Amino acid sequence: MLLSKLFVPIIKDLPAEAKIKSHQLMLQTGMIKQSSAGIYSWLPLGFKVMKKIEQIVREEQNFIGAQEMLMPTIQSAEIWKESGRYEDYGEEMLRIKDRQGREMLYGPTNEELITDVFRSSVKSYKLLPQLLYHIQWKFRDEIRPRFGVMRCKEFYMKDAYSFDLSDEDAIKSYNKMFYSYLKTFHRLGLKAIPMAADTGPIGGELSHEFVILAETGESKIYADKNIFQINFSQYSFEEKSLKKMREDFNKIYAVTDEKYKKDEFDKNVNKENQMVTRGIEVGHIFYFSDKYSKPLNCLIDDKNGKKTSVKMGSYGIGVSRLVGATIEANYNNNVMKWPKSIAPFDVVIIPSINKNNKENLEKAHKIYLELKKQNIDVLLDDLDENMSNKFKKHDLIGVPYQIIIGSKSQGDDLEFKELNSKSEILSLNKIKSKLKT
Amino acid sequence: MLLSKLFVPIIKDLPAEAKIKSHQLMLQTGMIKQSSAGIYSWLPLGFKVMKKIEQIVREEQNFIGAQEMLMPTIQSAEIWKESGRYEDYGEEMLRIKDRQGREMLYGPTNEELITDVFRSSVKSYKLLPQLLYHIQWKFRDEIRPRFGVMRCKEFYMKDAYSFDLSDEDAIKSYNKMFYSYLKTFHRLGLKAIPMAADTGPIGGELSHEFVILAETGESKIYADKNIFQINFSQYSFEEKSLKKMREDFNKIYAVTDEKYKKDEFDKNVNKENQMVTRGIEVGHIFYFSDKYSKPLNCLIDDKNGKKTSVKMGSYGIGVSRLVGATIEANYNNNVMKWPKSIAPFDVVIIPSINKNNKENLEKAHKIYLELKKQNIDVLLDDLDENMSNKFKKHDLIGVPYQIIIGSKSQGDDLEFKELNSKSEILSLNKIKSKLKT
Repeated sequence: MLLSKLFVPIIKDLPAEAKIKSHQLMLQTGMIKQSSAGIYSWLPLGFKVMKKIEQIVREEQNFIGAQEMLMPTIQSAEIWKESGRYEDYGEEMLRIKDRQGREMLYGPTNEELITDVFRSSVKSYKLLPQLLYHIQWKFRDEIRPRFGVMRCKEFYMKDAYSFDLSDEDAIKSYNKMFYSYLKTFHRLGLKAIPMAADTGPIGGELSHEFVILAETGESKIYADKNIFQINFSQYSFEEKSLKKMREDFNKIYAVTDEKYKKDEFDKNVNKENQMVTRGIEVGHIFYFSDKYSKPLNCLIDDKNGKKTSVKMGSYGIGVSRLVGATIEANYNNNVMKWPKSIAPFDVVIIPSINKNNKENLEKAHKIYLELKKQNIDVLLDDLDENMSNKFKKHDLIGVPYQIIIGSKSQGDDLEFKELNSKSEILSLNKIKSKLKT
Repeated sequence: MLLSKLFVPIIKDLPAEAKIKSHQLMLQTGMIKQSSAGIYSWLPLGFKVMKKIEQIVREEQNFIGAQEMLMPTIQSAEIWKESGRYEDYGEEMLRIKDRQGREMLYGPTNEELITDVFRSSVKSYKLLPQLLYHIQWKFRDEIRPRFGVMRCKEFYMKDAYSFDLSDEDAIKSYNKMFYSYLKTFHRLGLKAIPMAADTGPIGGELSHEFVILAETGESKIYADKNIFQINFSQYSFEEKSLKKMREDFNKIYAVTDEKYKKDEFDKNVNKENQMVTRGIEVGHIFYFSDKYSKPLNCLIDDKNGKKTSVKMGSYGIGVSRLVGATIEANYNNNVMKWPKSIAPFDVVIIPSINKNNKENLEKAHKIYLELKKQNIDVLLDDLDENMSNKFKKHDLIGVPYQIIIGSKSQGDDLEFKELNSKSEILSLNKIKSKLKT
């Protein structure tokens, strides 16, 4: 893509409400545009990053055997009355009356709707276990939307639901998803720690929040530092290993605010290992057994033909929030460097453009075509701007690798730079293979 | 995927309101489930087909240089008041009050919102032309939703918007999109005819509906049969050829109901070439110049620094409707055969399973793994059901190719069948290469 053609409207004057790094950066690089309070349009640069995150989330859901589907955004109030949550949910639920006066709502989550799909479809234990997920827009009518895409009204979320015959089987599904989340965040270049968490309006007894550390996070967390030492890659995707994984995490104290008790913290964690800090919730998983299947009458025939309420859990990842969270985790000293797996482009070519000399731009174009041929997603900064402005701009856009076509690039020896590192002189072939690994 | 694991809840009793083939078939094969009037969940089989259609639409938008972005579903009423459409739009617009009493709405289309994005971002002719698109859920509060996904309330649509400095340039953008639409529908295995159409609530002077013939279609069309003879592949994606393409289509009479005038039809088309029939609208494109940019004050500096309202067009494809439309076009004599490009699976293996003999199932599993290794997306019907039921079911699911493991398959000689054709005996290698072309 040529930068001159890319729709990246960059605003110069930041609005006062953009208080955190990710919100500022996303506006500064034209990733998003606010359309009304807490509601954003995703412009091409931001959209591309979000889609890459979505795809990684999808692949890791598919890997554990979850099947993708899609539920609508607008739901009938009826099923929420069946579950008893219609009144409970409060003003964050966007309630709507349609033209015929029917009570509808914009789904903030989908436990009721998926239970409705399931109860009309699956009647026998033979079809269990099932894992279903969708990636869909949700709406929460936040009274005070803030922090850009981190706490906005309309947000993009992956939510999965598990269905099992027994609590024992259900925990196995929970463990699979727990593993999947660790793997997903790892691929996104994030260190997300599972914290025992409160279940809030979703309900149930068992719950973990996946949290990445960030000063600007809204979750207060209390943890034993040793939790950072657990490397999920030592576990494999089979029942025993997943059980071991859960046990290993359970042994180490790590909780969110609502679960915190001072005496427990002091009893379980040595003073020097105690960590009290803030983080951003990027995922949240719940096991709530028959909380929805019972009132909604979602029954399964067991092996003996006896009807029993199916046991359910739900599992959310905030896809749009992750764009902001990744910035919070990676933007330091005025330099944003996207993890390779979700960078908006693989590499940017930055030629020094001189009005009397088009050589650099021509050379850049040649390299651009050459890299595109190799399926490398390359951005060419063909704008007539001085190099110092260009570098500042690309420090924000955050493409992790740069090819700089200026005095240091001679013939086939090109100046190649990884953000936050020193540049080196490499041949185009070396650069290609570097980008492809 | 093993059919025993796939979440395809097949309902036996069709609801009375399922009157057309596509609606019936989508329910019968568990592609969708209605959640409330005119609102559907897309279950894995239907979701997969819709995603394939979406991807083809996306590729063809990218091919002509359109850039993908994403606007939110919930919009502020303010911009609709600016354009003057808020009152005009009528009851099909789902109007919402948020918790602070602000007037919001669920976007039925996005002319206002994209104009708002554009006016705050682009100020100079140098950034023109621009083509932007998004694929997003829309809502129209139909008084009488019907025909399943064909006329539902919540629907998935690609809408693109073009921005040009002059009417002349804008027509070039229109032509590009016209070409892209022909190519898109061709790749979807559909013959969609562009018909001169009324502009309705979108406005403007110039408009085409892309229509596929179907008795169940809601659009009445009047055309010269010769319009079917124009093959879009004779045109190439460059200005002159696109102009010629438009001229060639313009020469032949083809209009929708609202544009029809009997005397014109009789004057322009010989009796024997007159065709009066029904069709399904799968795409609609509009050129409306400054209809939105003027009231919304979306101004561009031209080469002389003079401010001028940007010239806009909009271009829609009904992605979710296309799933139904493709069924209407391809489902005949109780056999549905998906076009290869959007089939839910590349091939299905159907073993004859006998309780005392697991050989066929084992053989099927081997072939299954072998095909998966080749990145062929294969479904294995591992259910214990008699063959005649299996065939009936697969006539509906519509995977275009079958490998039948029964008495005719011996050793490496396998029974291979394309739907609607006779089966033949082929080696697995021959089958692989057939599936891969």
